[in-house]
Amino acid sequence: MDGMKVLDQGYIQIISTMGSDQGIVEAARMSTQKGFLGWGTPDAPGDEKLLRHLYRNKHTTPFEMAAAQIEVKAPIFVFREWHRHRTQSFNEMSARYVKLPNENYVPDADTVLRRAEAACASKNNQARGTVERVPTRVEVEAWLEALNESYAASEALYEKGLSLGIPKELARIVVPVARYSVMRAQANLLNWMKFIGLRSAPNAQYEIRAYSDSLYKILKNYFPRTFELLGEDVFTQQGT
Amino acid sequence: MDGMKVLDQGYIQIISTMGSDQGIVEAARMSTQKGFLGWGTPDAPGDEKLLRHLYRNKHTTPFEMAAAQIEVKAPIFVFREWHRHRTQSFNEMSARYVKLPNENYVPDADTVLRRAEAACASKNNQARGTVERVPTRVEVEAWLEALNESYAASEALYEKGLSLGIPKELARIVVPVARYSVMRAQANLLNWMKFIGLRSAPNAQYEIRAYSDSLYKILKNYFPRTFELLGEDVFTQQGT
Amino acid sequence: MDGMKVLDQGYIQIISTMGSDQGIVEAARMSTQKGFLGWGTPDAPGDEKLLRHLYRNKHTTPFEMAAAQIEVKAPIFVFREWHRHRTQSFNEMSARYVKLPNENYVPDADTVLRRAEAACASKNNQARGTVERVPTRVEVEAWLEALNESYAASEALYEKGLSLGIPKELARIVVPVARYSVMRAQANLLNWMKFIGLRSAPNAQYEIRAYSDSLYKILKNYFPRTFELLGEDVFTQQGT
Amino acid sequence: MDGMKVLDQGYIQIISTMGSDQGIVEAARMSTQKGFLGWGTPDAPGDEKLLRHLYRNKHTTPFEMAAAQIEVKAPIFVFREWHRHRTQSFNEMSARYVKLPNENYVPDADTVLRRAEAACASKNNQARGTVERVPTRVEVEAWLEALNESYAASEALYEKGLSLGIPKELARIVVPVARYSVMRAQANLLNWMKFIGLRSAPNAQYEIRAYSDSLYKILKNYFPRTFELLGEDVFTQQGT
Repeated sequence: MDGMKVLDQGYIQIISTMGSDQGIVEAARMSTQKGFLGWGTPDAPGDEKLLRHLYRNKHTTPFEMAAAQIEVKAPIFVFREWHRHRTQSFNEMSARYVKLPNENYVPDADTVLRRAEAACASKNNQARGTVERVPTRVEVEAWLEALNESYAASEALYEKGLSLGIPKELARIVVPVARYSVMRAQANLLNWMKFIGLRSAPNAQYEIRAYSDSLYKILKNYFPRTFELLGEDVFTQQGT
Repeated sequence: MDGMKVLDQGYIQIISTMGSDQGIVEAARMSTQKGFLGWGTPDAPGDEKLLRHLYRNKHTTPFEMAAAQIEVKAPIFVFREWHRHRTQSFNEMSARYVKLPNENYVPDADTVLRRAEAACASKNNQARGTVERVPTRVEVEAWLEALNESYAASEALYEKGLSLGIPKELARIVVPVARYSVMRAQANLLNWMKFIGLRSAPNAQYEIRAYSDSLYKILKNYFPRTFELLGEDVFTQQGT
Repeated sequence: MDGMKVLDQGYIQIISTMGSDQGIVEAARMSTQKGFLGWGTPDAPGDEKLLRHLYRNKHTTPFEMAAAQIEVKAPIFVFREWHRHRTQSFNEMSARYVKLPNENYVPDADTVLRRAEAACASKNNQARGTVERVPTRVEVEAWLEALNESYAASEALYEKGLSLGIPKELARIVVPVARYSVMRAQANLLNWMKFIGLRSAPNAQYEIRAYSDSLYKILKNYFPRTFELLGEDVFTQQGT
Repeated sequence: MDGMKVLDQGYIQIISTMGSDQGIVEAARMSTQKGFLGWGTPDAPGDEKLLRHLYRNKHTTPFEMAAAQIEVKAPIFVFREWHRHRTQSFNEMSARYVKLPNENYVPDADTVLRRAEAACASKNNQARGTVERVPTRVEVEAWLEALNESYAASEALYEKGLSLGIPKELARIVVPVARYSVMRAQANLLNWMKFIGLRSAPNAQYEIRAYSDSLYKILKNYFPRTFELLGEDVFTQQGT
């Protein structure tokens, strides 16, 4: 198993994978029945040429022949974005059946400051905040402290409800969308590549991007040639 | 447009539909090229027999020929369940782009009490609460008051963050899963029928069931014969 | 209903549609809750700007809010390509239940000649024929005559099998892939747009391209602004 | 790799799989965070109870966490049914790019006779042949001989077209739907289970049923507990 920590309390890890770069070439060669002919060298490239052709020209079905199943711990607001990827399969912890652990996402002050500056400078009306100012570090730290207090107050009310006999599925409605949850997710490789293409893009929210970037790094170990092509597309034009 | 209020501040309404009971029969008759032969009477049934046969024997594709698009306002925890229906298309209000309105779901005391009693009496370990007791009405009312206070405190911190210049996408992480959101959703009729089959079932959570039951009533106006069959399946064995 | 003849004996026609260009804009505006603001003029463009932005930047879900159901008569080898579009719903005539009508696709001599010339001139090994020559018109006409005779012989054996009591599902295995079949197909608008993007492309086979081009023309009546954008993409860079 | 011969010239074989019976239980336990607790014995059953509960109560998502990729050689009319399973991914030999090998399905006389008898005896109008008679063995053998001759004539015209310079994609329109093709197919385990549920059912056509039954036997080696449950459902009520 291969995994990474993400954000303050989350993680992402591989449970299992299926297929390989070579299997993608084999599947593509079904059309001509020629099979895998071998990888080449920089001077005499072999089937890496076909792989690149498939990728660049959006011949997507061969990439559906591989698959990966992962486990992810992330805040609910990240899962809200994640679950829009409708080609994935999900099994998540259920607040109807268990009390959600008291773990909530707290961004670090540097990240908040940097993003507030970027939002304020943005020419995109939607990305801009509701006011045209950047908070000071002291203000951010005070806000983070208030955030922690708010989380504690929500948790106290959540536990109070449970101790009174309020059903779990109702007692939990007070938890913030920053609350961590856990799930397993399965998708074919094409759909993981689309996920990373969207969620590692510069306009993706920082938090889901952290998961997507980590997933990219992990899956690159299993599908190195395919993910090198994906990386050229997703990461190189982004600057930093 | 046809709509209904749901829960304390939510709603569900039809935006547009496609197809009809007759169109479902026509699609099924593609296989034999006979076309629609006409509805009958109770004494001399016509194509309602075929419709029933399709429904009972899970010949599902003809039901995919019809479709409906709706608009829904519901709490985030309801949308969390809703979005697991991966065959639907969604466009939802985004907390990255606008401040979420200060509307939060507050269950009424009677509902809470009734469900607490049912959970306590349940033989299902998961459905049971974390304690084996039922709250008193006074306790429920106190909890609801605390819930409202908690919502107000979260909202104050949300607005504080925005006024400091914290980006919208970060300032919102404090809002509870009880916060209302709005979306449009589109699916073919088969998938709406599966949604209702799962979400109007007795073990579905009360809140999503309220939306599902309302959707059933609304769509029955558009597909009366199909939804009569669905209703026999979903609602009759449940008692009241 | 709106329809067109396609190939020698096929057709395509609309059965029903759902939604509109305006509805696509409304769905996209769910994120900011601003609703449809109105179309503009060439000098003062209105929401056509948003529609173009959605299309160009692949914000695809709003296009899933519209849908169309069609009926198509096409040769089996065309349906073989068509059915790879897995997001569509299909109901097709079944050779297990009815005898397939004796209708088979016969290309016209001009089309065959033009395509043979193009294939011979192609630098793409796969597109090239198995020999590097172009048939004469006389050869093509002889081949078409032999094709008609082959169809007649297959049909005679099909009917012979049926008259002996061979089950329909077995008697039909002799019919050629040029045999016509009929189906209804339903998909949301995004998926019809993807279908047209792939099947009206220059490298698509002529026959499915004929259906795709016809579908484009028909659906443009229902979604004129969206299909103008699609047309710029699919048709303008293709020369003719 | 694990494979079987199917029909006269076809086969089915596993290319790769992902997951296990245990992984399915682990995914289901995400909801309660308890993990896999271990298999039991007939006297003291362990997590086989949960697996059975999931299967019987249609808690389907955990079965989506496993997957399998296979390679299949089958007649085109079988692939026509197969490709209706829209949740699978396919890469097939293309008659646009290569000449299809001259291999055509020829049923054996015993099978034809048995099915003709069954069809004639059937009370289902659609399943019945176009005449109410059963062919004699001599008639079936004559029909099979004529079938072989028809295949040879189609092949001769196919080759003639290619030798004239008719493009492959056009020359092939004369091949019968009995012609063999080859593909790779990938799906998650739930979708393979649904495939087998439909295609190993008594009313499925004999030929696709042969593939489905073989797939069942092969996948049972990889997911023995899950496929035992599936087998109880699909095969036991059918008699032998």
